[in-house]
Amino acid sequence: MVDALIIDDALAFVRALLEQDDVAAAAAYLRTLHPGEAAEVLARLDDEAQQRLIRHLDDAWLADLLEHMDEDEQADVIEHIRAERLAHVLDDVEPDVAADVLGELSPEQAGVVLAHMESADEVAPLLEFPPDTAGGLMNRPGPMLRRHMTVAEAFEFLRTHYRDERELSYLYVLDRHGKLVGVVSLRALILADPHQTIGEIMNPNVITVRADADQEEVADLFTRYGFLALPVVDEEDHLLGIITVEDILDVVQDEATEDIYRLAGMDEDAELFSPIREAARTRLFWLMVNLLTAFLASAVVSLFESTIARVAVLATFMPIIAGQGGNAGIQTSTIVIRSLALGRLELDEVWKALRYEVMLGFINGVVIGLVVAVVAVLWKGNPMLGVVIGVAMVGNMLVAALAGVLIPFTLQRLGRDPALASGIFLTTATDVCGFFFFLGLGTLLLL
Amino acid sequence: MVDALIIDDALAFVRALLEQDDVAAAAAYLRTLHPGEAAEVLARLDDEAQQRLIRHLDDAWLADLLEHMDEDEQADVIEHIRAERLAHVLDDVEPDVAADVLGELSPEQAGVVLAHMESADEVAPLLEFPPDTAGGLMNRPGPMLRRHMTVAEAFEFLRTHYRDERELSYLYVLDRHGKLVGVVSLRALILADPHQTIGEIMNPNVITVRADADQEEVADLFTRYGFLALPVVDEEDHLLGIITVEDILDVVQDEATEDIYRLAGMDEDAELFSPIREAARTRLFWLMVNLLTAFLASAVVSLFESTIARVAVLATFMPIIAGQGGNAGIQTSTIVIRSLALGRLELDEVWKALRYEVMLGFINGVVIGLVVAVVAVLWKGNPMLGVVIGVAMVGNMLVAALAGVLIPFTLQRLGRDPALASGIFLTTATDVCGFFFFLGLGTLLLL
Repeated sequence: MVDALIIDDALAFVRALLEQDDVAAAAAYLRTLHPGEAAEVLARLDDEAQQRLIRHLDDAWLADLLEHMDEDEQADVIEHIRAERLAHVLDDVEPDVAADVLGELSPEQAGVVLAHMESADEVAPLLEFPPDTAGGLMNRPGPMLRRHMTVAEAFEFLRTHYRDERELSYLYVLDRHGKLVGVVSLRALILADPHQTIGEIMNPNVITVRADADQEEVADLFTRYGFLALPVVDEEDHLLGIITVEDILDVVQDEATEDIYRLAGMDEDAELFSPIREAARTRLFWLMVNLLTAFLASAVVSLFESTIARVAVLATFMPIIAGQGGNAGIQTSTIVIRSLALGRLELDEVWKALRYEVMLGFINGVVIGLVVAVVAVLWKGNPMLGVVIGVAMVGNMLVAALAGVLIPFTLQRLGRDPALASGIFLTTATDVCGFFFFLGLGTLLLL
Repeated sequence: MVDALIIDDALAFVRALLEQDDVAAAAAYLRTLHPGEAAEVLARLDDEAQQRLIRHLDDAWLADLLEHMDEDEQADVIEHIRAERLAHVLDDVEPDVAADVLGELSPEQAGVVLAHMESADEVAPLLEFPPDTAGGLMNRPGPMLRRHMTVAEAFEFLRTHYRDERELSYLYVLDRHGKLVGVVSLRALILADPHQTIGEIMNPNVITVRADADQEEVADLFTRYGFLALPVVDEEDHLLGIITVEDILDVVQDEATEDIYRLAGMDEDAELFSPIREAARTRLFWLMVNLLTAFLASAVVSLFESTIARVAVLATFMPIIAGQGGNAGIQTSTIVIRSLALGRLELDEVWKALRYEVMLGFINGVVIGLVVAVVAVLWKGNPMLGVVIGVAMVGNMLVAALAGVLIPFTLQRLGRDPALASGIFLTTATDVCGFFFFLGLGTLLLL
């Protein structure tokens, strides 16, 4: 019986050994861990430590570790392995992982490694599919069952062909043209009478997915049907590969990270500590887009400069208008975006969402408007200022609700990811309208 | 061979049948679908349609559908089922799902339903554990293997005790005190010689998790080790239950949604179309917190009212300062928060993160400062205004980088979720410092 390892402790221990220059002991210690644990420890070491350790790890073990890393971690580690060795290592990993690792290299480097690989035939076809499609996630299927086999024969077949397979939940049944005709779970096989045929016990209604399906769609199928594995087919139902639920856990994490980064105005594959020039370029891009729209808000304020020169207290309340409008709008757009992504909201529900959010915006606007109005009157002793900021706040909250619903729905309808740039359009709308209401009312009532 | 159903088509068809008042046909059509598909269709119907349909569905099928719904969908559906019927339905679902469903009811209602259930003994113990812990996710284990059994005996045992089990990947081995001593995969069982004993073929190093472990920790273990199932034990290694990877897919989705909502300043379990009074209350809470901090920014601006009265053009550029500082800070804090959540960044790397982000903030600040300065000079014809806004922008971007790193790290160190309220603290820091730099410099150089 073992508890899960405390990774921080293991990491400290490995670092201590490396500091004493006992690399062999550090490598030997890693060997005692579960590959999932060792992979996490190795991934967290700095470049130099990784390089020293990797020299002391044997190829099969290194292969095990690569299988337990995500793509960023793999990219870090393989930097320290030259092409011939990498080829040997990749011969020992699952073909879909090998394809992912090769995808982290330049096409030339990948070609060199592939040329040295014995399992190149299995891996090369997987490189055709983009890594974020069903084809990129799948593994090539092993030998498949036939309908006329008996259960007893199927057991023999498994012992012959699946001795080295690590995880196996379902067996698929092909006809002689290589078309998928059924599925048998290991459980069903064990429970069946040995004399029954596979044709009798198989489930002929196999749910499949096309190789070009997006990984998000594949993840949705796993969630909807609760499968442990899903077969990938071409247009004529020929079996191309198998995706397992394990691979999908990573997909779900990655898709969530993509959404979070896009909501924050960053590239979906942003990474901490990526080369600074590249990070500056991608983050600057979004900041510049935002700057462009911020100038729209400035232009609105600029219209009222002569008002502000005479009633400078208006400037004091500008951050409140911008902050509350932006925040309320982000609340609305985030819940709309996430509900769309999770399939809890449909495109034809735009009116329902609009009615709900506008009602909510009105309630929030009245409450916040009253609070801000009271504070303004008490602070600045100007009742009319209270009226101006209070009324402007209600208008601003209504705009936040409208924009928070309409912007994501519009992007979705245009076939774009609603997470992308919603925030920038949204704060532009709330700033421009908010300042216009507030300074416009101020000009009418306070001059 | 079947492709995944197009849910929208199925939904339209069911709605059409319901409009023609042919509820029986709608129910019969649902029956032809996979329960995962039927669950999605049912969940998307409105309250009245759900109520009419549910009356026509038999209890076992309804149980199947509940198993394929998430908790919000279950809560919607069970509103239409009276206690006695719900008890029958829940007798047919997995105990962990039944416990989740009962958790959606008030304690009194849950007690009434439980009193009518035949499987109350299996479900009641699960209600002790909060739903977001390992104990809340697990199912009670079926009968377990013993070390002295032969493989042939184990097959017989499986045929006797696991005939109705749907998914089964591993079998666990207990000693006579009920302690977990080993694990055997179905694959290993099939590949073994029938005369070997379970003790010989089992893996004695079972990774386990305690019942009180947080669900996020459980999800990390599944990701790290690549398991299909994980046993849950008490302090003395007695087996309490089993968690399967299927349940974890939902956990990963839910945790991502929580993070996204918290980043947007909403309750982690916010929902579109929840009762408007409740939605207003929770969203107003965060808007009020934000309002409090927005007044800090206002107070800073207020200090400079006399400057603004004489140089009103400063007010025009305030939205640029606030917008760029806030956006850059959100970029930094989001990547830090997500990297912490995914275990890609450790608490002891705060200096590394700070150096990197401050460097990036400086580069972005110089570039954006130059652009804004040039625009300001061309637009307003005032070179000194360009100097003021350019220099203030650099300072503002440095503050954004500092706050974007330090706020999440501090919250994490205090044991809080760094996603929670980071945004509010962050924009307060960038607004307060940004306005202070900008208006302070303006007072010095433009008066």
